[in-house]
Amino acid sequence: MTHAPADFASDNTAPVAPEIMEAILAANAGQALPYGADDVSAELSAKFSELFETKVLVFPVATGTAANVLSLSMLTPPCGAIYCHENAHIEEDECGAPEFYTGAKLVTLPGDHGRLSAANLSEKLEGLTLGFEHHVQPAAVSLSQATENGTSYRPDDVAAIAEVARRFDLGLHMDGARFANSVAYLRCAPAAITWRAGVDVLSFGATKNGGMAAEAAVFFRPELAETFKYRRKRGGHLFSKMRYVSAQLAAYVADGLWLRYAGRANAMAQRLSEGLSAISGIEIVHPVEANEVFPRVPESVIVGLSDLGFGFHRWGGRASPVLRLVTAFNTTGNEVDGFVAAAERLAAEAAE
Amino acid sequence: MTHAPADFASDNTAPVAPEIMEAILAANAGQALPYGADDVSAELSAKFSELFETKVLVFPVATGTAANVLSLSMLTPPCGAIYCHENAHIEEDECGAPEFYTGAKLVTLPGDHGRLSAANLSEKLEGLTLGFEHHVQPAAVSLSQATENGTSYRPDDVAAIAEVARRFDLGLHMDGARFANSVAYLRCAPAAITWRAGVDVLSFGATKNGGMAAEAAVFFRPELAETFKYRRKRGGHLFSKMRYVSAQLAAYVADGLWLRYAGRANAMAQRLSEGLSAISGIEIVHPVEANEVFPRVPESVIVGLSDLGFGFHRWGGRASPVLRLVTAFNTTGNEVDGFVAAAERLAAEAAE
Amino acid sequence: MTHAPADFASDNTAPVAPEIMEAILAANAGQALPYGADDVSAELSAKFSELFETKVLVFPVATGTAANVLSLSMLTPPCGAIYCHENAHIEEDECGAPEFYTGAKLVTLPGDHGRLSAANLSEKLEGLTLGFEHHVQPAAVSLSQATENGTSYRPDDVAAIAEVARRFDLGLHMDGARFANSVAYLRCAPAAITWRAGVDVLSFGATKNGGMAAEAAVFFRPELAETFKYRRKRGGHLFSKMRYVSAQLAAYVADGLWLRYAGRANAMAQRLSEGLSAISGIEIVHPVEANEVFPRVPESVIVGLSDLGFGFHRWGGRASPVLRLVTAFNTTGNEVDGFVAAAERLAAEAAE
Amino acid sequence: MTHAPADFASDNTAPVAPEIMEAILAANAGQALPYGADDVSAELSAKFSELFETKVLVFPVATGTAANVLSLSMLTPPCGAIYCHENAHIEEDECGAPEFYTGAKLVTLPGDHGRLSAANLSEKLEGLTLGFEHHVQPAAVSLSQATENGTSYRPDDVAAIAEVARRFDLGLHMDGARFANSVAYLRCAPAAITWRAGVDVLSFGATKNGGMAAEAAVFFRPELAETFKYRRKRGGHLFSKMRYVSAQLAAYVADGLWLRYAGRANAMAQRLSEGLSAISGIEIVHPVEANEVFPRVPESVIVGLSDLGFGFHRWGGRASPVLRLVTAFNTTGNEVDGFVAAAERLAAEAAE
Repeated sequence: MTHAPADFASDNTAPVAPEIMEAILAANAGQALPYGADDVSAELSAKFSELFETKVLVFPVATGTAANVLSLSMLTPPCGAIYCHENAHIEEDECGAPEFYTGAKLVTLPGDHGRLSAANLSEKLEGLTLGFEHHVQPAAVSLSQATENGTSYRPDDVAAIAEVARRFDLGLHMDGARFANSVAYLRCAPAAITWRAGVDVLSFGATKNGGMAAEAAVFFRPELAETFKYRRKRGGHLFSKMRYVSAQLAAYVADGLWLRYAGRANAMAQRLSEGLSAISGIEIVHPVEANEVFPRVPESVIVGLSDLGFGFHRWGGRASPVLRLVTAFNTTGNEVDGFVAAAERLAAEAAE
Repeated sequence: MTHAPADFASDNTAPVAPEIMEAILAANAGQALPYGADDVSAELSAKFSELFETKVLVFPVATGTAANVLSLSMLTPPCGAIYCHENAHIEEDECGAPEFYTGAKLVTLPGDHGRLSAANLSEKLEGLTLGFEHHVQPAAVSLSQATENGTSYRPDDVAAIAEVARRFDLGLHMDGARFANSVAYLRCAPAAITWRAGVDVLSFGATKNGGMAAEAAVFFRPELAETFKYRRKRGGHLFSKMRYVSAQLAAYVADGLWLRYAGRANAMAQRLSEGLSAISGIEIVHPVEANEVFPRVPESVIVGLSDLGFGFHRWGGRASPVLRLVTAFNTTGNEVDGFVAAAERLAAEAAE
Repeated sequence: MTHAPADFASDNTAPVAPEIMEAILAANAGQALPYGADDVSAELSAKFSELFETKVLVFPVATGTAANVLSLSMLTPPCGAIYCHENAHIEEDECGAPEFYTGAKLVTLPGDHGRLSAANLSEKLEGLTLGFEHHVQPAAVSLSQATENGTSYRPDDVAAIAEVARRFDLGLHMDGARFANSVAYLRCAPAAITWRAGVDVLSFGATKNGGMAAEAAVFFRPELAETFKYRRKRGGHLFSKMRYVSAQLAAYVADGLWLRYAGRANAMAQRLSEGLSAISGIEIVHPVEANEVFPRVPESVIVGLSDLGFGFHRWGGRASPVLRLVTAFNTTGNEVDGFVAAAERLAAEAAE
Repeated sequence: MTHAPADFASDNTAPVAPEIMEAILAANAGQALPYGADDVSAELSAKFSELFETKVLVFPVATGTAANVLSLSMLTPPCGAIYCHENAHIEEDECGAPEFYTGAKLVTLPGDHGRLSAANLSEKLEGLTLGFEHHVQPAAVSLSQATENGTSYRPDDVAAIAEVARRFDLGLHMDGARFANSVAYLRCAPAAITWRAGVDVLSFGATKNGGMAAEAAVFFRPELAETFKYRRKRGGHLFSKMRYVSAQLAAYVADGLWLRYAGRANAMAQRLSEGLSAISGIEIVHPVEANEVFPRVPESVIVGLSDLGFGFHRWGGRASPVLRLVTAFNTTGNEVDGFVAAAERLAAEAAE
């Protein structure tokens, strides 16, 4: 029996997880008040407050970009600067949405393996002449957890960045499109890597890890969310039948589903990483701390894998020798093993 | 056996129709390319081209506001004026989203029963000094079909407005949040009330008529859509798992489902209107040409209906004697009859 | 000896007053720190604080639109509503600048003779469902002093509007493009018609009354101006050689020059009004409370005056029988008398 | 006889040149039509067409930021990318104005001595996946002439960049805040370094070189300027008494005044550069190709010069050892010599 070659192009090619689809079906009973006044939506903030062990305000939206840019818009005036990694999703992959919603300017910093460092941030901020009206003014920092390179900030990393942010009176945002994967990897409490470390607002993603289209802006400092609901509507992101978005989020965080699924995806990434790193000529370029693997691969192997029908992206340009391989909640060991075996065979052929 | 009092507050309190939920479930099979590269999404433009009897470009989004404001942003430069009815949804109920996405200014016109008139529009435009840089410049007209008062423009009405629009080089947008209801009422071809009458782009709604969260921006002049996909992403409205939005739209227009459902809702509105208009002291203030009924009702009857648990909104202010009653694809004759009977009883008590 | 026919088209066709040009020349001595760090600019806030009998913050800009829209941007979030008269300059004559700078929506109200009424405003605000996220939220009120119809709010009028504004937590802006004319007409202290009556920020105009290009945003509540300087730069309105703008403003308010000039213009408007109102067939349609006169004039007289070379605008549309006649600081009695005599002659001919 | 120590902080600390002030005074005669309908303004496009040996459209504004951002707004849709040097004025010193006016994103490139290179630009653009909606789309390139490092692009440099721009369908903007200094240095025709080399629109600066507040957006492809006048008004940059801005520009380009003044400033920069480079321990870090000199100076000398009262900025951070020295049209040889002598003395003391 043969299988289609596995797809590691992204975790958004996966379907909706069965528990989440069941929640959607369960929500589909009779009439319900619109715009978040339904019962499921009404309980979300309480559920998330429990999950995060503090009182939070939660706003469901349906895309990660919406969660990011609406959250950021609460942290900066139009003349502000938002500091982020030079390869952050908000900088590279949101087609200007952050600037559109905030009016602010993204200012990028380098950092190994996709991570900002507190030292770089501090040096950048200390070099500024604050209050000089020719320059955008520091307003916020945005971290990605997991990062674009599949690495995870430790609580101490976040706390060090938060300390710099507080010193300069900056808000701290976390883009958690793959937050579950980091929490599963770190085996820490969600609180430990967010508000306890100094995060003000989190884009909490569910779509990539089994959801259909569900993300949440989670405010750990509710006073920052004062005009959020108006901005969400003004952005066109207020859903009339919000119960279906909220049902996804409620099911996602119930009984640890989100962490079980993230743990599976992470385990598959580890298996993939181990398999590939054992192949001569292939090198893993970033630590595997979530559900992404970045191997440097000989060109003939890349071409061979592509010809075999495996799905993946080159990372860092159209001719880059580094691949990005993403596992998802439904990735199987067989899929991983099939990919590794194919890479091994192709690498051996290349070495002949 | 007793039933809960019916809810006529909005058609967005209804659940997802079974055929559409089945389509969502059917889309949930294995991996699929993201961002609209899946098979279901790929066929949408073809399906809609067939439906509208001309080549169209279709862009799925998930809210009516997103469909409206992204569509309008293709029709106007930032210094433009968009003409609309003074009670249009884009003017009153989108929290500034049109201005946010377009940079343009909404200029409102009065009109009976929620309808713009070609004569008013023409008079307004003829009174302008075009090219005078102190004023926003006419760029687009936006019609709602059905209107906010539950009335429907006839093809000739639209054509007359389009003629004025063309004379002044304006784009013509139709907000079709309840487009199905108008088409079902008019019993005309979708083409007849849109591009054949001069409409350039349509916000085609499915959410209110059985969808979960699915709307489509339908461009009858594809050249107008050139930068639409970038603006959609920049607005945060590009769905990674777009197959689930597209599946709703595909099921909605398959085999006339959308018109069958709209026809049912319309029939219930007619039944409601007939029942209420027979009650002494109640008067229907707008023609019922879709799925909304606007009766003027004595205060004691309003209070009584509310006390009984019926759902509805006053229309035109918090103390208005006019109600808006909206029927949906799943409204039943019993629900309508129960409401009418209650109103009759309360009106009789009031008359004693 | 003959003279060119007078120009009453606008007070912005006048040249720079000699005292102000002298101040510009005086500023032109040697090097000076840029961007407002020069001596003249540095003293402006103190001079205006004296003038207004309270501590104010003053920001020079060069156009009235810049002063208005930057000021308003400090009073509203992007989802706000700014209430203004339906014929306000910000609504009709700034090509969308207020929306561009604020992200907010202008909501217009009618009012006799260009004036908003506290009663209308209160009724409008009381009819709203506050906090309903589908609607822009009340944020500010903008009054024009003098109004677009050449009338002036009394201190009590402003105070009544301010009372409503305070009740709904709205900021109060005054567009004072012709503030001098109103103050000269009312013979009140500048404080009496601004902060003592409840105004938060004033666009204080000098250009129309003898300046070259000089306006000031005057904040009576300095805490509202926190990000003004960044927004001014971001709008491109920070002048490197600001000394020349500041010199105009300093000369303008020194020794009452601004009120002497405004008083002259007002006197000419009164003379014009009296002369015209004595002519059979001509009627003055708005009280003359500043430097503008709005007569309704027979068509043949309008055409005749235009043919003679007099400068003026029709008001309210290209075919309107109402003219707007504006006097300036340099308008002479002979100019006024010549216009009145011509109108009289033409009216007599028309009556034959 | 002693003099105040010279100020080399910026060319915007200089006063208005006498010829330009005379032109302002000459414009101050009687009434004139507003908003650019006056005679002086009306002739500007013709004068500039002659100067540039091709038909151009000219729009006067009063700040360089306004000229830059309004010009750029004509070259990009809101989802566009504008490529510029990483230290460009539009990137670093306009407080987000370019993003505000264009909605686009600035994408920066490195480059020696402040200059973009065609090779870098080409490599960047060739690495992109065009049409990928997650990314802003290439729309324009902006060059500064002279650059922020006081260097000047040769016609061939500009032509090479323009060739890349044309290949990717990008507009080409030149920020000419110090355009005069570059033209004077290059001794080329203004046409040679602009449209003949492929520039589409130029921000032509006069303020820094003897003007009061006058810049011009010069369109070499008039069809690109279609909505400029509305955007100018919407930005608050339309001057009612525009004659005074236009008069500056007309005088500036009459009889080669702009090049004579620029030549003087350049000569003083050369003299300064030669004097400083002869001092042991001081090194000139960028070629001197306009009116700016960037010497690396020992800390004790910097402190000493500052203590003596000389005006200058450190460049590249608050603790940078590199100074920026700017000469102006009115800088004298004595001022230069005094600075050099002081530096020499301080350097000698430091070496002891």
